[in-house]
Amino acid sequence: MSADLTDLSAGGERRATTLADLMTPSSIAIVGASDDPTRIGGRPLMHMLKLGFPGDVYAVNPTRDTVQGLPAYPSLSDVPGPVDFVLIAVPAKAVPGVMREAAAKGAKTALIFSSNFAEASAEGAALQAEVAEIARVGAVRVIGPNCLGLFDAGHNFYPTFTSTVERARPRAGGIAIASQSGAYGSHIFIVSHERGLGIRYWLTTGNEVDVQVAEAIRLMAEDESVHTIMAYAESIKDGPGLIEALEVARAERKPVVFMKVGRSEVGAEAANSHTASLAGEDAVYDEVLRAHGAYRARTTEEMLDVAYAARPRIYPAGRRLGLVTISGGAGVLMADAAADHGLDVAPMPEAAQAELKELVPFASPRNPVDVTAQFFNDLSIVPRFTKAMLDEGRYDGLIGFWTGVAGSPQLSPPLLAGLSEAMAGRENLFIQSLVAKPEVQAEYEAAGFPCFEDPSRAIAAMAALMFFGEAFAATPPVVAPLAEAPALPEGAVNEHAATALMRKAGIPAPRSEVVENARMAQHFANALDCSLAMKIVSADIAHKTDLGGVALNVDPEDAPRVFDEIMARVREKAPRAGLEGVMIAPMAGPGIDCILGSRTDPVFGPVVAFGLGGIFAEAIGDVALRRAPFDERVAGEMIRALKGRSVLEGARGAEGADLEALASVIARFSQLVAAWGDAVESVEINPLRAGPDGCLALDALIVRKEGA
Amino acid sequence: MSADLTDLSAGGERRATTLADLMTPSSIAIVGASDDPTRIGGRPLMHMLKLGFPGDVYAVNPTRDTVQGLPAYPSLSDVPGPVDFVLIAVPAKAVPGVMREAAAKGAKTALIFSSNFAEASAEGAALQAEVAEIARVGAVRVIGPNCLGLFDAGHNFYPTFTSTVERARPRAGGIAIASQSGAYGSHIFIVSHERGLGIRYWLTTGNEVDVQVAEAIRLMAEDESVHTIMAYAESIKDGPGLIEALEVARAERKPVVFMKVGRSEVGAEAANSHTASLAGEDAVYDEVLRAHGAYRARTTEEMLDVAYAARPRIYPAGRRLGLVTISGGAGVLMADAAADHGLDVAPMPEAAQAELKELVPFASPRNPVDVTAQFFNDLSIVPRFTKAMLDEGRYDGLIGFWTGVAGSPQLSPPLLAGLSEAMAGRENLFIQSLVAKPEVQAEYEAAGFPCFEDPSRAIAAMAALMFFGEAFAATPPVVAPLAEAPALPEGAVNEHAATALMRKAGIPAPRSEVVENARMAQHFANALDCSLAMKIVSADIAHKTDLGGVALNVDPEDAPRVFDEIMARVREKAPRAGLEGVMIAPMAGPGIDCILGSRTDPVFGPVVAFGLGGIFAEAIGDVALRRAPFDERVAGEMIRALKGRSVLEGARGAEGADLEALASVIARFSQLVAAWGDAVESVEINPLRAGPDGCLALDALIVRKEGA
Repeated sequence: MSADLTDLSAGGERRATTLADLMTPSSIAIVGASDDPTRIGGRPLMHMLKLGFPGDVYAVNPTRDTVQGLPAYPSLSDVPGPVDFVLIAVPAKAVPGVMREAAAKGAKTALIFSSNFAEASAEGAALQAEVAEIARVGAVRVIGPNCLGLFDAGHNFYPTFTSTVERARPRAGGIAIASQSGAYGSHIFIVSHERGLGIRYWLTTGNEVDVQVAEAIRLMAEDESVHTIMAYAESIKDGPGLIEALEVARAERKPVVFMKVGRSEVGAEAANSHTASLAGEDAVYDEVLRAHGAYRARTTEEMLDVAYAARPRIYPAGRRLGLVTISGGAGVLMADAAADHGLDVAPMPEAAQAELKELVPFASPRNPVDVTAQFFNDLSIVPRFTKAMLDEGRYDGLIGFWTGVAGSPQLSPPLLAGLSEAMAGRENLFIQSLVAKPEVQAEYEAAGFPCFEDPSRAIAAMAALMFFGEAFAATPPVVAPLAEAPALPEGAVNEHAATALMRKAGIPAPRSEVVENARMAQHFANALDCSLAMKIVSADIAHKTDLGGVALNVDPEDAPRVFDEIMARVREKAPRAGLEGVMIAPMAGPGIDCILGSRTDPVFGPVVAFGLGGIFAEAIGDVALRRAPFDERVAGEMIRALKGRSVLEGARGAEGADLEALASVIARFSQLVAAWGDAVESVEINPLRAGPDGCLALDALIVRKEGA
Repeated sequence: MSADLTDLSAGGERRATTLADLMTPSSIAIVGASDDPTRIGGRPLMHMLKLGFPGDVYAVNPTRDTVQGLPAYPSLSDVPGPVDFVLIAVPAKAVPGVMREAAAKGAKTALIFSSNFAEASAEGAALQAEVAEIARVGAVRVIGPNCLGLFDAGHNFYPTFTSTVERARPRAGGIAIASQSGAYGSHIFIVSHERGLGIRYWLTTGNEVDVQVAEAIRLMAEDESVHTIMAYAESIKDGPGLIEALEVARAERKPVVFMKVGRSEVGAEAANSHTASLAGEDAVYDEVLRAHGAYRARTTEEMLDVAYAARPRIYPAGRRLGLVTISGGAGVLMADAAADHGLDVAPMPEAAQAELKELVPFASPRNPVDVTAQFFNDLSIVPRFTKAMLDEGRYDGLIGFWTGVAGSPQLSPPLLAGLSEAMAGRENLFIQSLVAKPEVQAEYEAAGFPCFEDPSRAIAAMAALMFFGEAFAATPPVVAPLAEAPALPEGAVNEHAATALMRKAGIPAPRSEVVENARMAQHFANALDCSLAMKIVSADIAHKTDLGGVALNVDPEDAPRVFDEIMARVREKAPRAGLEGVMIAPMAGPGIDCILGSRTDPVFGPVVAFGLGGIFAEAIGDVALRRAPFDERVAGEMIRALKGRSVLEGARGAEGADLEALASVIARFSQLVAAWGDAVESVEINPLRAGPDGCLALDALIVRKEGA
């Protein structure tokens, strides 16, 4: 099923859709329109009549003459004029028929509220596939089924049965919301509205038979009235589509704040039982969102905070944060929070500190800059300190802590005037932490200052905007899969063959040979003429050491004897295992053992993981992850991302690894597995010995994809 | 200085103070009273006149006849009646004189607003010490100096110059706030007030010459009108005092929500420059607060959330969480958040699931329990599902997600009635996530349901209350320091002596001997008659292996030769090192190398850290920390707290360690270092080899405290 549906959204012509094509029609027909404005088929009509949708509205209901005062047509085909948009609120079984009519009518979009499709049963899934096929053939874009609808507040277009738009009439603004979940999407809308955010577009995608959250993000990013995008999803089916959408948003400098839920085991289980679509591995989502410039929010509050703080559309391109406060305690607290978010609370230059100290002897001019209660006596302190922080401190962003002072009728006006004076002609982001009535806060907002009551939330929002600043400034690197990737042999790949493939792909690995008898062992050992490692080769044996199948530091002249011993031990302990022989290779030099692996994520394709060997990767989870392919720069990032990186860098006087060689091998590996793509399930080099003069793949494992 | 001050707060008679003694007087004199109600010396008087403090109020001001309509006395001694409480708002230099008068007047408490004490200069520190001495001799408790004051809203007692109480007249409730920071304490008060919390007591401690946050917590815990305590501190001087306070609160079942700031390096620096008191190590605060049942909040919002959710005073004694939702998406999100907080979203029993499924076929009855939009059609679903979750699911706490439905005039009343019906006669904590007007939310609160708009915050608050439930149910273990702890020798302790001390203390360590010549080596090797480890003994050499000072797996008959080789190698490479000889010990058996160490925290005394050896402890920071002394149960917790615990438990078929023996050694070590107490700076066993049949201290290091 999913292959079909993916094709749909990836199809050529169908991609030409704009957001306006999809959700700003000039006419709508509601099939299953109800006279009762509290019913699913009645509410959208009521919204549009009440709020004044300017286009044509047709009600389709075979059992009535009129619906909510409009003439009712017995079927969609009976509607006289052209119909851009068809809203379908009839039982699942009747949906295919309506879809055929919609296609015949030349509708651009069909929105299906109805449930009882793939989320409910196998029968429903078949029905859903039928809907998909009709849509594809008829070139009708489909939203849903099993969704709550959408709105375009700019055109008073409200094909949704959520009751929230009644209590909270959307004010058009620069924000767009794309949500897989209807009820939770509705929650996001209402809390955004109460927060004062202007939501222009709201789109719920439900079962995503055609339009998915990923595509919605792309269309929103391409729409010029949208500045900021909030997205919520439990699963992503079209990984490349999501990446494309995020890159469009990045190119347009539009922040995408993304809640991908189902992070935990119980959460993923719940998502699965809820939407019947398996989530990919969470760490991969984390990485994909980060790498493509989307901010992953963990809570709805955080998502709203970021969207709200993005209102001035200033995205600082660095992480240097200046803090100015009337409370030393708040300064400490904000410095802690900044450290949690990886921001740099760098001190003011010494000279500037001395100047400020002269201005206010009690002040702490370092950063956090504590202007103290002295500010109450001399209101000029705020603009002077702020200017010094911008001119001398050269911070990428500022946060001010004023608590209830900003709510004081006497002190607030001069404070705001001072802040505004300092910022005149500047383009820096300055977030204020203050406690004031909404109307007072609105004055600060109008002057370009996002406001937070809680200083920790101000810091978190600043960190997110700095993330966007860095992401928008970064050029997405284009790295190709390995052109000269060696072909995979047919059938199973043993360790010897896997290691040889690595060598062919340009990843250093010891030259080895599989020998089948003592004479061959002698011959190859003589040729190598160095200390040897000897290992049993058998597809049936996972833990070679446990069965006595490994010998290390073997003298070349002992090779035939050791060959016989290994074969005898393994035959005795694993009499039924098929033995292909013994692999002989030179002993590797000293180094730090790492694990370099890839697996093919069902959503995002090959993903490379790198970590230290031993129990680090497994027990501690100290692993860096990137989508393949990538270059040495990204590989270097992966090395530095490890908590245990000091081991590779050379901890406590011990010799470290050749990090350049290591990065080069990691990058090349990523290009290799990208070239192999779907043909493999996973590839693992374990250990990859990272020595002081380069690194060596001592063992490799390639698991072919079943059927590939 | 600090020793003096600590003595003060620990003094016998002075400990008898109650919160009422300290901050609910029947009379107050304001020294430095101002006629201008906006000035520091005028504001408290204005507050108390306006808000009606029922006790006697005296104004002291030598330059005026009246102050704000009251007669002014030239000095405190001139005040006619008795004075319980003296508020001092005069320049620092004049404070000692006023303090002497206060003592002569028999005042119980002196509150000092004045700054320019220890936070400003050495001169100020001397002045502060003088104040402390006068207070001690005169038996006057001192709050401040350099603080913003306090209030007791139950008696309209407002000796504070914060302007926030004008804009937000405190409503007396069951919450008390203790804050080292004045300005931030003021912020905490105002945001609590706006949140609807009733703050009965508010106390800022400033420079803490006498009353510290720790003591304030104890007094608040002992006060029967207080239910919940919020605390904010940048540093704690009296560690044992804090622990005592937290244990009083635990015994009284009163939650303490604690913000200890200065967690990060920059934050700690800022705290230091701000209050001139060095913070102890942050991980130790984390552990002390956790171990003694206080919840450490990272943000003010979190602190308020927990205090707010504690209003019903229900502290679930387990971590099983039931989630009921009208949005599958919210269920997934809440399950994720619950996993982040270590809560157990256990599934409903199969039979109960089947029953619910019969009730609502579309529902997901597993947990999260998704009642779906079906609830709109049949309002009885909510009470029936809720009852099933309590009776069959036996969850320790429940969270419901209703979003804007609870704000709907049609749906909210039956929803609330259904929830109340289900909870009738039960004592379970049920938090609601909803979006509704304040007056509607108040109805839910009045019915005993704490309400949060953001579901993630609801989960976090539930996790905190479950933490309190577990902490209140736990009996604090009483463990004594090791009675038969071996005495520390005079002077430096070499490796051999340190290991021998461990053996004497009952911690298994190999029997070793330091030999000074080849003949002695032969003799001792013969006596041991097993494979040997030999190591150079020298106080001047840190990295023995690098200098060739270590030989392992030595055959006893080779011992004299190896002795000579070691001595020769080390003499050649480190000709100026003083060599005491070579230590000979039996080779230890196989096992997993761990690090077991202690250091004496300046605030909280000996603290034990346990981690895996190699780079785990250092590079990864995978270390468990507990205050010494403790028992085997706590030691077992430490082992299980490690991310790398699977190595000790036996990962991937490898043999694990004897965990019982390991826990026993860790506990004994904690009792040993507790017995040594301040005499040592740090003790380290590295490696502690944890084998399958017990563990062995292979090397030990004892660093004596300078001067101890």
